[in-house]
Amino acid sequence: MQAMKKYLPILSWAPQYNKGMLASDLTAAVIVTIMLIPQSLAYALLAGLPAEVGLYASILPLIAYAVFGTSRTLAVGPVAVVSLMTAAAAGAVATQGTELYLSAAITLAFLSGLMLTLMGILKLGFLANFLSHPVISGFISASGLIIAASQVGQVLGIPMSGHNLLELGRSFIDQISKIHWITVAIGCSALLFLHWVRRDLKAMLIRLGLSTGTADLVAKAGPVFAVIATTVVTWGFDLQQQGVSVVGALPGGLPSLMLPEFDLGLWQQLWVPALLISIVGFVESVSVAQTLAAKRRQRITPNQELIGLGTANLGSTFSGGFPVTGGFSRSVVNFDAGAETPAAGAYTAVGIALVTLFLTPLIMYLPKATLAATIIVAVLSLVDLGALKRTWHYSRSDFYALLATLITTLASGVELGILVGVGLSLALFIYDTSRPHSALVGLVPGTEHFRNIQRFKVVTDPRVAVLRIDESLYFANARFLEDTIYDLVAEAPQLTDLILMCPAVNHIDASALESLEAINARLFDAGVTLHLAEVKGPVMDQLGRSQFPAQLSGRVFLTTFAAWHELTSHSLHQ
Amino acid sequence: MQAMKKYLPILSWAPQYNKGMLASDLTAAVIVTIMLIPQSLAYALLAGLPAEVGLYASILPLIAYAVFGTSRTLAVGPVAVVSLMTAAAAGAVATQGTELYLSAAITLAFLSGLMLTLMGILKLGFLANFLSHPVISGFISASGLIIAASQVGQVLGIPMSGHNLLELGRSFIDQISKIHWITVAIGCSALLFLHWVRRDLKAMLIRLGLSTGTADLVAKAGPVFAVIATTVVTWGFDLQQQGVSVVGALPGGLPSLMLPEFDLGLWQQLWVPALLISIVGFVESVSVAQTLAAKRRQRITPNQELIGLGTANLGSTFSGGFPVTGGFSRSVVNFDAGAETPAAGAYTAVGIALVTLFLTPLIMYLPKATLAATIIVAVLSLVDLGALKRTWHYSRSDFYALLATLITTLASGVELGILVGVGLSLALFIYDTSRPHSALVGLVPGTEHFRNIQRFKVVTDPRVAVLRIDESLYFANARFLEDTIYDLVAEAPQLTDLILMCPAVNHIDASALESLEAINARLFDAGVTLHLAEVKGPVMDQLGRSQFPAQLSGRVFLTTFAAWHELTSHSLHQ
Repeated sequence: MQAMKKYLPILSWAPQYNKGMLASDLTAAVIVTIMLIPQSLAYALLAGLPAEVGLYASILPLIAYAVFGTSRTLAVGPVAVVSLMTAAAAGAVATQGTELYLSAAITLAFLSGLMLTLMGILKLGFLANFLSHPVISGFISASGLIIAASQVGQVLGIPMSGHNLLELGRSFIDQISKIHWITVAIGCSALLFLHWVRRDLKAMLIRLGLSTGTADLVAKAGPVFAVIATTVVTWGFDLQQQGVSVVGALPGGLPSLMLPEFDLGLWQQLWVPALLISIVGFVESVSVAQTLAAKRRQRITPNQELIGLGTANLGSTFSGGFPVTGGFSRSVVNFDAGAETPAAGAYTAVGIALVTLFLTPLIMYLPKATLAATIIVAVLSLVDLGALKRTWHYSRSDFYALLATLITTLASGVELGILVGVGLSLALFIYDTSRPHSALVGLVPGTEHFRNIQRFKVVTDPRVAVLRIDESLYFANARFLEDTIYDLVAEAPQLTDLILMCPAVNHIDASALESLEAINARLFDAGVTLHLAEVKGPVMDQLGRSQFPAQLSGRVFLTTFAAWHELTSHSLHQ
Repeated sequence: MQAMKKYLPILSWAPQYNKGMLASDLTAAVIVTIMLIPQSLAYALLAGLPAEVGLYASILPLIAYAVFGTSRTLAVGPVAVVSLMTAAAAGAVATQGTELYLSAAITLAFLSGLMLTLMGILKLGFLANFLSHPVISGFISASGLIIAASQVGQVLGIPMSGHNLLELGRSFIDQISKIHWITVAIGCSALLFLHWVRRDLKAMLIRLGLSTGTADLVAKAGPVFAVIATTVVTWGFDLQQQGVSVVGALPGGLPSLMLPEFDLGLWQQLWVPALLISIVGFVESVSVAQTLAAKRRQRITPNQELIGLGTANLGSTFSGGFPVTGGFSRSVVNFDAGAETPAAGAYTAVGIALVTLFLTPLIMYLPKATLAATIIVAVLSLVDLGALKRTWHYSRSDFYALLATLITTLASGVELGILVGVGLSLALFIYDTSRPHSALVGLVPGTEHFRNIQRFKVVTDPRVAVLRIDESLYFANARFLEDTIYDLVAEAPQLTDLILMCPAVNHIDASALESLEAINARLFDAGVTLHLAEVKGPVMDQLGRSQFPAQLSGRVFLTTFAAWHELTSHSLHQ
């Protein structure tokens, strides 16, 4: 039962489900449904797919996540960044509007669902840790800018295409003469309205006497007002006849259940982007889920989250949808609206199903410019260029990783951007550890503690040097260690004993072991005895499996102070 | 002048050159020349090239290295592993025996020469550190096995081809029926003789009254006796008419100077293998040079060595040769024979030039089986499968890197082998650091030192926990740290203070900083104060550039003992 609860988190809350929870979850579901309708349509268009695919991707995934997910409040569905990545990946194998393009998007959801589920079963959630914060930050900011730029065309009524800022810019310049002014009027009104909603509406509603919570929810529903208003205007003035691009007639009814195409060639072309979509979607989703869980002192289980998101994507596949994940703004609304269990997600799914069944005719006159405006306003809030300055200030390596991710993503697109970011942040870590900091240290008077002779007033002895190595010793820095020590010994003619202080040495690999053996032999020839101090348990265990302790000319001391005490008093007696 | 000496090491010894040095260098040069003749022919054949190309690659490179190299005794020329890599790379773009194949080999020497020289000027010698000892060991052993297997065909008189053990095995099975028994007789006699020379001759000569040094040099010249004997037999009995494959007529005279082909397409195909050849050649050469230099208390300069080897390869290019580097056995002979300066290398070059001019007719009847036998005996001494056991015993990560390099090289060839080795050893290092060891520590009685409570008898306090983190904190392990601390706090209900002991924390990157901020806030909410102790200077400097020290609920202590003393006495007073 405990094991079943682990893999089916629904079992841990469904048996205690009561009326109070039902009421809370239903309220939250209604609000999220209203918010999700324009979002799901908009993100489907962003992914280059027919608008109804967004609705299809907002039904089964939510139910699957309610059964397998561990967050009580995460709202799953199409999100901006993953939709952009879907467009880039599907666009690389097919032309927008073709059957193959749709098929590629569904296959991406399928592969991504398989990978996530498998990673969850194999407990590979730690892989997400290799996306560092600066890389995520640069990637999300760049994606936000690309998405915003890609929607400018819709707001101006011109066709624009491209998966990076350069392509979009070129396409913009080519098309700029064809701006459609009625569309601009609708798009810019929506933009201004949404901007005002985001900035001022909440404060105004509070001044009008609404509670903070209610004001917040009404403000979050802003896009729905824009959708309704522009749809009514377009319908009333027959603007689609004037050339305003609208969502148009959607096929009524629920999607029919289907299987993805078993096309190995397509799978081979899409597995890398599917993996990137999986990891980015997982990282985005888990960070939202963790933030919200922490607020209510709940915990989520990252490896089970993988299974939750994996089955959600498989659900999307079977209903002809595209990749989904947990969305930030939507989850916050769900949380604020009082959702208590994942059942809220299932009720939202029912809501979207009802909309798909009965309300699609109302959407027909919705201008695409309005959807583009909602996307632009939403994604620009993801852009955080201030992170560049903060990171520059704190750490250059992190700054370079952020900048490289940002620029590569903007200039070349999401896939190369994230690969360059991950590769560079790992390379910088390796590079940093390959040139370790080390310090000659001395005794802090009145303590048994040793610190850098250049930073602290400490006691030293010309015959006994204490060198603190601030890094694990491994192949990339083994030669560096040799050079450091040979230089040190060459400059200290009176030296008889060298103590290597090892509290910061967490590993000694086979290459570093050979270097230590060489150092020991060479110092011995030069009349200098080598000692080790503060070697940590796991490292000492490992050294014990080699010949080194037997060859060592000096001793291994438990503490640097013991070594110092022994060697300095000893040399005084000589 | 000092700067010129740095880039032209010849200036540091040529002005002091005297008669004694001349005599020593000449003696060594004669011995190395005798040894180099069969080697250069054999390694040219191993690289799939005409035998004379081996001689061409043993003239200019030696002179270039004498001018630019820093080792006094390194003997440069064709070597086994680099010849194998040349065969693999040239074989990927052309068929053996074609003009394009030769042109590819010369281009490899040119690109490799350019890269090495450039790396030397840019001081990129540290890149070689990324080849760990286990990777080098696995690579060299596998290369030795592949080379030995590739020569079996010559000894049996059957055509065999392939760049890995699988291809060679398939080719062997296809051809096994065509074994040529006269060739087998010559080849196996040479093998047995060389094996006997290597194992027993030296001891026998010493028993016969020769000095150890002389006995050693005579034994090292073993291949020359085999070459002379089998050449004479082949010539005497006209065995080439019986189908014994011989080196045949070589073009007399010195190679004409030439430029490499400027074919950008070819360069694009060959730059990756050229880079691998450069790095492997550099690593092999530098380790030989350092070993020999250390014996005479001399030093070599790795970055200048890059320039020495780079110009040697450019020299090889201009005389129509293939990639060269410093060879192990040859350099040892040069050293043992008493070479005192790089001039010995220049005299060897003159010796090989004289051979090329006047003695090539004598080589005509040399059976290829004899050359194959000399290669087999030489390379099998490189194979060190015992390293597998030693490394397994010492470190699993190193063992896996060694094993993967060995198997990939054997099964797929040199290029993939070395790339997999380097990639895997870096990945294992990252993986190890992503799951850091940490230990709850307590005070060792009678000292100010803290050690693991599970390994030592130490003093602890249920209200104050001291956690030692044995790793730098960075993106790959930031979440791991959070989990460790939250678990710790959840299991210690009495806890009021947590001291993070940071002597092993060498970096804290932006991702880890965010984790620390989250931990600090969350512990504060749970009523636990977070303190840091023994934060090293560079890390504290960095933290000082963030908001973290201001947010920290507790304090930063210089020593763990100070923190412990303050907090435990404080909690006693409550």
